[in-house]
Amino acid sequence: MASTKKTVPTKATKASDISQWDIETDVIVVGFGGAGSCAAIEAADSGAKVHLFEAASAAGGSTALSGGEVYLGGNGGTKIQNMFGFEDSSEDMFNYLMMQHSPQADEDKIRSYVDIAASHFDWLVEKGVPFKESFIDERLVEPITDDCLLYSGNEKAWPEKDHFKPAPRGHAVQKVGMGGGQVLMEQLEKAVIAAGVNIHFDARALSLVVDDNDAVVGLIVRIDGKEVACKARGGVILCAGGFVMNEKMLKQYAPRLDRCNSPIGNPGDTGSGIQMGLSVGGAAINMHEGFSSIPFYPPSTLTYGIFVTDKGQRFINEDAYHGRVGTHLLEQNSERLYLIADIEAYGDYEQMNFMNASVAGTGDTVAELEAELELPQGCLSNTLSLYNDFAAKGEDPMFHKQPEWLRPLEPPYVALDVTPGRGAYMPYFTLGGLDTKPTGEVRGLDGSIIEGLYAAGRTACGVPRRGDGYNSGISIGDATITGRKAGIAAASRLKNS
Amino acid sequence: MASTKKTVPTKATKASDISQWDIETDVIVVGFGGAGSCAAIEAADSGAKVHLFEAASAAGGSTALSGGEVYLGGNGGTKIQNMFGFEDSSEDMFNYLMMQHSPQADEDKIRSYVDIAASHFDWLVEKGVPFKESFIDERLVEPITDDCLLYSGNEKAWPEKDHFKPAPRGHAVQKVGMGGGQVLMEQLEKAVIAAGVNIHFDARALSLVVDDNDAVVGLIVRIDGKEVACKARGGVILCAGGFVMNEKMLKQYAPRLDRCNSPIGNPGDTGSGIQMGLSVGGAAINMHEGFSSIPFYPPSTLTYGIFVTDKGQRFINEDAYHGRVGTHLLEQNSERLYLIADIEAYGDYEQMNFMNASVAGTGDTVAELEAELELPQGCLSNTLSLYNDFAAKGEDPMFHKQPEWLRPLEPPYVALDVTPGRGAYMPYFTLGGLDTKPTGEVRGLDGSIIEGLYAAGRTACGVPRRGDGYNSGISIGDATITGRKAGIAAASRLKNS
Repeated sequence: MASTKKTVPTKATKASDISQWDIETDVIVVGFGGAGSCAAIEAADSGAKVHLFEAASAAGGSTALSGGEVYLGGNGGTKIQNMFGFEDSSEDMFNYLMMQHSPQADEDKIRSYVDIAASHFDWLVEKGVPFKESFIDERLVEPITDDCLLYSGNEKAWPEKDHFKPAPRGHAVQKVGMGGGQVLMEQLEKAVIAAGVNIHFDARALSLVVDDNDAVVGLIVRIDGKEVACKARGGVILCAGGFVMNEKMLKQYAPRLDRCNSPIGNPGDTGSGIQMGLSVGGAAINMHEGFSSIPFYPPSTLTYGIFVTDKGQRFINEDAYHGRVGTHLLEQNSERLYLIADIEAYGDYEQMNFMNASVAGTGDTVAELEAELELPQGCLSNTLSLYNDFAAKGEDPMFHKQPEWLRPLEPPYVALDVTPGRGAYMPYFTLGGLDTKPTGEVRGLDGSIIEGLYAAGRTACGVPRRGDGYNSGISIGDATITGRKAGIAAASRLKNS
Repeated sequence: MASTKKTVPTKATKASDISQWDIETDVIVVGFGGAGSCAAIEAADSGAKVHLFEAASAAGGSTALSGGEVYLGGNGGTKIQNMFGFEDSSEDMFNYLMMQHSPQADEDKIRSYVDIAASHFDWLVEKGVPFKESFIDERLVEPITDDCLLYSGNEKAWPEKDHFKPAPRGHAVQKVGMGGGQVLMEQLEKAVIAAGVNIHFDARALSLVVDDNDAVVGLIVRIDGKEVACKARGGVILCAGGFVMNEKMLKQYAPRLDRCNSPIGNPGDTGSGIQMGLSVGGAAINMHEGFSSIPFYPPSTLTYGIFVTDKGQRFINEDAYHGRVGTHLLEQNSERLYLIADIEAYGDYEQMNFMNASVAGTGDTVAELEAELELPQGCLSNTLSLYNDFAAKGEDPMFHKQPEWLRPLEPPYVALDVTPGRGAYMPYFTLGGLDTKPTGEVRGLDGSIIEGLYAAGRTACGVPRRGDGYNSGISIGDATITGRKAGIAAASRLKNS
């Protein structure tokens, strides 16, 4: 190919600078994770010739590293939901997701997601993804059994449960042990191959190619040390992940996540896809937001405990989803944060400890614990006495923890240190990305479409927009659904051109 | 001039599409507010030929609408600080600002600001800006007298006061009544004229012009309905304000500010400067952040009150700066927020009410107030009893309000509704913008400089980065200081080219 003046993702290449295309195809997909594989499958199934470029040496992306949970439902329910008696309405699912992600929620995108969220289950099954016909009604981050259906968000917690009929929507891929995402990706990779997609591993996308009208018409990739110019007649679909592995971008855009300690993603989550989009005038939105969690359950008995600040104040219903709790931990104006447990729950925690929080103090009385934690005298006593009085009546009028998780906390007490940055496991990833339409078309700064450019998965800003409103399975759901839609849209643009 | 293909700020124009320049100059400044006027003055004083384009029909920008307070100090103190015995150290000022704006703080930019922050006072005086030689030691948002020096941030509040020697750094322009910014801008406008700057009013910047190397070489402006092509040999300095008046951008980038109700800015704060920067590959950072305030003082006696959530919990030291309080109001996970005052403070509030909060409830006892506010029984009683016990001893170990603002709250009580979005006055503006070096040079996505482009004031992301750490006077300080630096840098680039 001709030399290109610009070879970093932050600058686009002009088509007029390319004397010869090395590859000419219909649709180019960048990234072979959940979004990229689904984009490639759908584009190929629509009749387009597809080239897929992956910087790593194997398929998988961050989807393969995930628990393999997919957040699905609505439309009367998926097959598995129905088997266990859940008739999930689209309105409930739509309104639930709107509430979770407002004020940032994208109504069109959520509607588009919900509309397909039951049939998408069948599509995945058709592609060979295994789901066991089972429902596991426990308070889990992800099943360690090979079970499928579970509550994976705030459906049964306040305030959501007061507004929408709760339904379990987490559909975990069948696999004993954690990490069902690997199984999911193995099946999607097979489907990509079966669809006849041209796959290039160790192929790093360097820059988008734009024509004189600023439409995206191709991509420069580096393969075997050489720059390869690839023309895409239909479009380029960026599925290159988020930016959780790019320390500079994190600091620049999402500094709140600084105090978390375990980035969730693959080494390729460097923001290169977002930067390529920006380089051709795409808008990046919601860049400050992220998922942050503290996996304090299992053991579920810690949910009987209370989270408190260094003022001894509670701040959340402890039966909320771990991602909501993690987000609120980051938001507290408090030098220390504790989870106060009774001895029984602490015993369970010693047996089953995912969060790695150390013991900050113990006490045979509240006063003793207060002293050990150096809390102002009386503040935790006040909190506990009020909490216990209400809990004895099965009520929590302050934070609305559900009755099943209320029992008066009796001494001796243990305080676990859940202060972000002090050792407790706090995984995180980014939720900002390119502004896209539900079709995956990338929007420019003025809201207009950048011709020929699509984004899906965490390269785009998708359905999940707030750590506070996150549910397990929504990223894999969003990646695979938006990937599919972008694949269809890019192939269809080709036909209509 | 030749026709240009692109005329919206979201797209740059290519120099090769311009057949003839209508204006050729050294430095172009966009926007005639605090930043733009200082940029123009310094560029002209450096020997550059300067054209200044302002979309409105008069000078002023948002600076003219402000209180005219400038946050200055360090270097042993300004002349006025010294007159009243404050020897302000640069280290204290630097560390204070770093603490205020971390984790987003830009160390280089803060250092650059502090270094010039005492001599900048003299520069303003030299340009004719009047400051009275006076110090007003009251808890004020801005002086309604013509006084100058005041504490305008969190200098005397916890936790800052435990780390740095407090110094008043707000320098308010001399004017009886509010709105000293008008006086400031009148003087700066005179200085711009005296410096020989070519001023164009009703001149709307449409797009930046870039050469084949993506350097900025000019600007297209619309004057009298015609597009005028202007070449800038040294550089273009964007001083076009923030985006608080652009509802779409606000929703897209800073949705947290949604519940505030009074945008602070001029109608030109549409983000057009930021968008122009993005259109040539500039990076926009900190876009989600904003200043948000609730001006609950004066009367200062409301500071004896306590802010509480719908759980009856306090959440802040009430002697904090109003901008910090406003920011924390937005962050509370609470359907209602109240300021609980005793009858004396409420009486003062009736006399001097800037915040327009309505009475949500009253009570001759705490239990009565709890019932009227429909709070869970006992929660506010607990809070008040603990608060009063400590206050009687002159202590606030939970939130560290200073002893001078502690007195036990005795019935009858009044609860003012300070819930964001429920009527109380909550002014706000944006704190995100183009990523710049202290010189005003705009950084691209990869951190490299975009040749020929500068930004200052709220078009850039400057020293103030967090609502939580905002101080009155820091925006005018930042605008005028970064404007000056950008003017000098653009003129100097010309000389070195």
